[in-house]
Amino acid sequence: MNSLHQQLNFLREIDRLKTVIRQSPLLDQSRKENSAEHSWHLAMYALLLRDHAVGVIDVERVIKMLLIHDIVEVDVGDTPIHSGASSQDQTLLETQAAARLFGLLPEPQGSELLALWHEFEDAVTEDAKFAKALDRVQPLLANVHTGGGTWTENGVTLEQVLQRYGTVIARGSPALWQVCEQLAREHFAKQSSSVPV
Amino acid sequence: MNSLHQQLNFLREIDRLKTVIRQSPLLDQSRKENSAEHSWHLAMYALLLRDHAVGVIDVERVIKMLLIHDIVEVDVGDTPIHSGASSQDQTLLETQAAARLFGLLPEPQGSELLALWHEFEDAVTEDAKFAKALDRVQPLLANVHTGGGTWTENGVTLEQVLQRYGTVIARGSPALWQVCEQLAREHFAKQSSSVPV
Repeated sequence: MNSLHQQLNFLREIDRLKTVIRQSPLLDQSRKENSAEHSWHLAMYALLLRDHAVGVIDVERVIKMLLIHDIVEVDVGDTPIHSGASSQDQTLLETQAAARLFGLLPEPQGSELLALWHEFEDAVTEDAKFAKALDRVQPLLANVHTGGGTWTENGVTLEQVLQRYGTVIARGSPALWQVCEQLAREHFAKQSSSVPV
Repeated sequence: MNSLHQQLNFLREIDRLKTVIRQSPLLDQSRKENSAEHSWHLAMYALLLRDHAVGVIDVERVIKMLLIHDIVEVDVGDTPIHSGASSQDQTLLETQAAARLFGLLPEPQGSELLALWHEFEDAVTEDAKFAKALDRVQPLLANVHTGGGTWTENGVTLEQVLQRYGTVIARGSPALWQVCEQLAREHFAKQSSSVPV
């Protein structure tokens, strides 16, 4: 198989990301979001919000990182943030999936994308920290704009939101966390005031 | 409304691209593809197939172009390639939609993305010609890999495929057209040999 056929084979394989269903709702609440359209939305977040990163970032790298960040889910599915799944097991499965999938590509392309995927997972570089922040901002806003979303479904508290989203978002973009925190606080304030006595 | 709120408002608005249904099937044929996941897939095509462009391209610009190329469909929906819709009317509607949607963004970001969208539509630059080629390659492969897809549904002939896809793909990437043409010819050869006498 020549390089082009390897690449087309990979592009055929990752079509399945469109069938991986996440917990987050679409904003019109017609259904849950899938990981392919989520990846598109995050790439748009990076393109538009680049100036709100705390560090100096290369937005083109961040976009590429976000385009590929969920591709392992083709093999292992999505792990919801509120699922409490063992993160060590999940990390191992995802690492194996990344090796298999990016291994379908010709070299050096496969190794380059595998390294970019690991960089995202490790969340050490400024690019990865910003990418990780956006990967929390988007589902947070989906919950806020749909009156609760996965928070309501999983009985998540404001304190859990501040911990599960706030740490990661504030690390990559304090400006975005400022807006997100306010929206989350307003959401939970409304919830508690509407609870029947 | 400050810049960040304008950007978040835009990102909320374009969530609706996930509900715009195209004619192309997913490869597992479970449903039709939507324009948001299609945009993600095309960005991946650009990232992987950059070396097969006929001209000198800036792949990061091509990726951005493909991420935004269908955003007007939030207002005007998808126009299938085989629909025979009046292209002058559609162009006017899409131009108005682009002005409205990108006009939601702060300047100069709004104008920059509007210009990038027009560049894609005009298909004059090398970046745009390659992006347009990919936007034909992906649905062509979807039809080939699903045994006919929109071609079967619309009674499309090999000659129509060569004209509707071939011209645009060959202009941006002769290497990709070579593979696509062969796959299309094999597909139609199989069809004609399986027609009952």
